[in-house]
Amino acid sequence: MSTSGAASPPEQPAVFTRIRLADRRDVPNIHRLIHQMAEFELLTDLFSATESSLSSTLFPSPPLLPFHSFTVLILEISQSPIHNAAEDDSDLGFRPLTRRIALKSVFADPEASIFASPRGDGLVVAGFLLCFPNYSSFMGRPGIYVEDIFVRESWRRLGMGKMMLAAVAREAARMGCGRVEWCVLDWNKNAIAFYEGMGAEVLPQWRICRLTGEELSKYAVDEEDSAGRP
Amino acid sequence: MSTSGAASPPEQPAVFTRIRLADRRDVPNIHRLIHQMAEFELLTDLFSATESSLSSTLFPSPPLLPFHSFTVLILEISQSPIHNAAEDDSDLGFRPLTRRIALKSVFADPEASIFASPRGDGLVVAGFLLCFPNYSSFMGRPGIYVEDIFVRESWRRLGMGKMMLAAVAREAARMGCGRVEWCVLDWNKNAIAFYEGMGAEVLPQWRICRLTGEELSKYAVDEEDSAGRP
Repeated sequence: MSTSGAASPPEQPAVFTRIRLADRRDVPNIHRLIHQMAEFELLTDLFSATESSLSSTLFPSPPLLPFHSFTVLILEISQSPIHNAAEDDSDLGFRPLTRRIALKSVFADPEASIFASPRGDGLVVAGFLLCFPNYSSFMGRPGIYVEDIFVRESWRRLGMGKMMLAAVAREAARMGCGRVEWCVLDWNKNAIAFYEGMGAEVLPQWRICRLTGEELSKYAVDEEDSAGRP
Repeated sequence: MSTSGAASPPEQPAVFTRIRLADRRDVPNIHRLIHQMAEFELLTDLFSATESSLSSTLFPSPPLLPFHSFTVLILEISQSPIHNAAEDDSDLGFRPLTRRIALKSVFADPEASIFASPRGDGLVVAGFLLCFPNYSSFMGRPGIYVEDIFVRESWRRLGMGKMMLAAVAREAARMGCGRVEWCVLDWNKNAIAFYEGMGAEVLPQWRICRLTGEELSKYAVDEEDSAGRP
């Protein structure tokens, strides 16, 4: 005879997620995530970020106002429900978003210890998003540009990328922004289908022009001012 | 017998240009220029900017720091050398650039009176550039994104667009930015050749994704928070 009465149903495996603003303590994880992203995009030759450069440009003192300058969101996961600490409801104005995601089965994250969250509590960093304001002159309104959206391999195909992008879209809509934009590689058909499913349009005709490296440095030198200066 | 001695050589026709920071007084001209740009790009259906929206987003009080937020440069032309007033060497940190451009012949600008500069002195506004900071996570450094670069029809093919873009590239290089980026329509072969001539690379594989209008508004509504909030 069972002492627990009727057998309880088997518990559905789940993972708990949180999306919160990054701070300076997240820099080592952000640096590792950016490197993984460069590997995924086969662009490691362009990778030159250091923890120091990320720290000084993304997390200066006083901190940048979220969504009004460079903004990093961190995606954390946990095996148990995540309770926000007081510091998470800061004056910076982005309240962390928590969710429970049902899993078909429990699986291992071989990088869990490398990506331990600086917030402790067994939290593990699973991804990030980096965005900043842009501007539509045709609309006469600011927008938000998402430079990066990345989820580590163990946690893909669970809707976490969409959660981060939706969090930005929510902020943009509430702030009265005209649009949210980002880029995708034309061979990444899965990503394109995913973004179109979110309501985005992929613009076929625009191409990015980039001036960088030595070609950019050349412009630091003043040309002769043929009209003379006062 | 001539009283002036030897005949002086015929004077080469020329126009004098200035690139300076825009301020709130430039809004009516900026609005007209953006509309002309929308006509040129066959995109007037996307044009919804008003003088009021441009004024509040581009020229708030206190003013935005140039090249650290939304920044508008104004291109002015004059028949005589342009002398910068004291207000042009302001604390905002962008010293106006003046040039003399030789012309093959003198020609009329039928829109000169519509585009009179608010700075007076017979100056006429011939174009503008709008840019703002972006960020390269691979480099761990900010860059500058040029959203618009536009010269009115009368003043094209004289190198004025290049002058404005070079002015931004100079600022970017001096600020330690990793790159300057902008977009071009893939059918605009003249523009592509022009940008490549300036040292830029056109990236073939990236496409812009855009979430706007009703599709964006949908995200303003909070989804249920299945994990509950504290």
